[in-house]
Amino acid sequence: MARCSKCKTEAESLYWLDSMRSSLCQSCLIEHYEKKVKRTIIKYRMLSDVKNLGVAVSGGKDSMALVRSLLNIFPSLNFTVIHLNLGIPEYSDACQALVQKFCQENSIECITYDLKKVEGYSIGDFATSKLGRRICGICGVVKRYLINKVALENGLDAVATGHNLDDTVELLFNQYMSGALGDLVRNKPVLPSTHPKIVKKIKPLVEVTEQENLYYVLSTHTGYVDRECPLVKGSRMLKRKKLLLRIEEEIPNFKYLLFKSHVKRFLPILEKHFEAPAIRECERCGMPSMNSVCSYCKLVSKLRLSSPVSFSSH
Amino acid sequence: MARCSKCKTEAESLYWLDSMRSSLCQSCLIEHYEKKVKRTIIKYRMLSDVKNLGVAVSGGKDSMALVRSLLNIFPSLNFTVIHLNLGIPEYSDACQALVQKFCQENSIECITYDLKKVEGYSIGDFATSKLGRRICGICGVVKRYLINKVALENGLDAVATGHNLDDTVELLFNQYMSGALGDLVRNKPVLPSTHPKIVKKIKPLVEVTEQENLYYVLSTHTGYVDRECPLVKGSRMLKRKKLLLRIEEEIPNFKYLLFKSHVKRFLPILEKHFEAPAIRECERCGMPSMNSVCSYCKLVSKLRLSSPVSFSSH
Repeated sequence: MARCSKCKTEAESLYWLDSMRSSLCQSCLIEHYEKKVKRTIIKYRMLSDVKNLGVAVSGGKDSMALVRSLLNIFPSLNFTVIHLNLGIPEYSDACQALVQKFCQENSIECITYDLKKVEGYSIGDFATSKLGRRICGICGVVKRYLINKVALENGLDAVATGHNLDDTVELLFNQYMSGALGDLVRNKPVLPSTHPKIVKKIKPLVEVTEQENLYYVLSTHTGYVDRECPLVKGSRMLKRKKLLLRIEEEIPNFKYLLFKSHVKRFLPILEKHFEAPAIRECERCGMPSMNSVCSYCKLVSKLRLSSPVSFSSH
Repeated sequence: MARCSKCKTEAESLYWLDSMRSSLCQSCLIEHYEKKVKRTIIKYRMLSDVKNLGVAVSGGKDSMALVRSLLNIFPSLNFTVIHLNLGIPEYSDACQALVQKFCQENSIECITYDLKKVEGYSIGDFATSKLGRRICGICGVVKRYLINKVALENGLDAVATGHNLDDTVELLFNQYMSGALGDLVRNKPVLPSTHPKIVKKIKPLVEVTEQENLYYVLSTHTGYVDRECPLVKGSRMLKRKKLLLRIEEEIPNFKYLLFKSHVKRFLPILEKHFEAPAIRECERCGMPSMNSVCSYCKLVSKLRLSSPVSFSSH
């Protein structure tokens, strides 16, 4: 039997953490993870002035780790889960069932928004349309839009999402490489509300890795949908994640180094140079937008044009 | 026989260029290379106001490609070669012989500075001292200092060096990762003179890759020292270069993208935030320094303390 690097007790199985280059037993893993998430929340003052918190939960390991750790770290925190049923065949219904069961068992209020039922189309429809090649990007736009809308309509004043360090650094890598300064300014742990219709977003898991999330749900026996979304296969996103793992093999802690350098060194300078872009209201849906029609409404019209799906009036 | 991607003539052997993802025959390769270098020199106005150009030539493929391309692109340009004999056993003397022969054959004035003869010690002495583990960094400080000093003493008003895209991006990668903003500001194609004792530095090869330099010296039958410096073996620099090659396999043109993003997007912003640091004169040697004693003089005193080499008075 091996020994835990932290408490030194013998354990039958240990979790090897790339980020720490050491092995932890179950209880040290949980302690380590919750300490880290708590530190992130405090460091970036994520919950200051938040009265009604929403937590976006898809049912995957990241968002399940998020909701479980919030329950454990802040037992008296009151929050509402937001779950989007995206209508991805052989996937979304299983996600919804898992999230609703978890919420019921833990007495958490859960708002489920069923895209197909409310809007008349689903991410599955996008995937089979001509737009299908960019499906991950499209799904991102749809989720961002709907999470904000649902939070706003339910009087929530912040939404926590499960973005992890790997997600964040994958974006940073592309944004630094392409000089996407405007996107870099928005890639940060807390996105404050900059318009009455934009709800503040916080990323409590921004400093933990995908691996840490996986180990945390496993060690806390938290259920999660352990299949990848069937639409993500072979996408560029996955390739990029593999590349980052290869870089991290060569440069230990690369992901955290790049993240820290971004937040501490570059962000303060970039923020001085980029005024918040003027936000108006989309002429179709009235939600905040940087153009006359918002990205969400543009996508939906493209879908209408490119596929024979019947839409509910909206 | 294969065909050249550009002129379509059949050739027995072609050069496969990673940067272009195509194969060129000898004459198209030369044309491609010289066009690219010329464009870089013009784009960054490297030779504007330069009356007496120095060209730092070590004898390796990069600097030999530099001096050969300058001869070919600007046949009437008058320049002086600066060669440092760094006193690396079984290496430096071969470099000096090659550079001097090339200069003689091409009627180029050549200033050779023999470190051991003039200063009483060599890079070889550093390598065998306690400081030996950081030898590549030390050699960099010594070369930068001496190239500037020799240029200044010989009335040259700019020095061209053979830094290529791989060198540059390797540094950029580390500097972005560690948030070394001050170093990023100095990582650029032209370093202007910011003090009467600092000679302007230009990098005409900053947009060509190591591979392009190699193919150019081969296709122009330019001699070069085709061994790596014996001291560089196993250093972190080589590992980092391999990592960059792996990234480039995954993201075509990664090196150029990062370079362009740096120069076009980040540099203008970073330069506004970093005033040129106050430059004074080193209290020991009188050369420009950011501290009371310059990095070069600090290194030399450390060497005196750590090894029994006899120094010439200096």
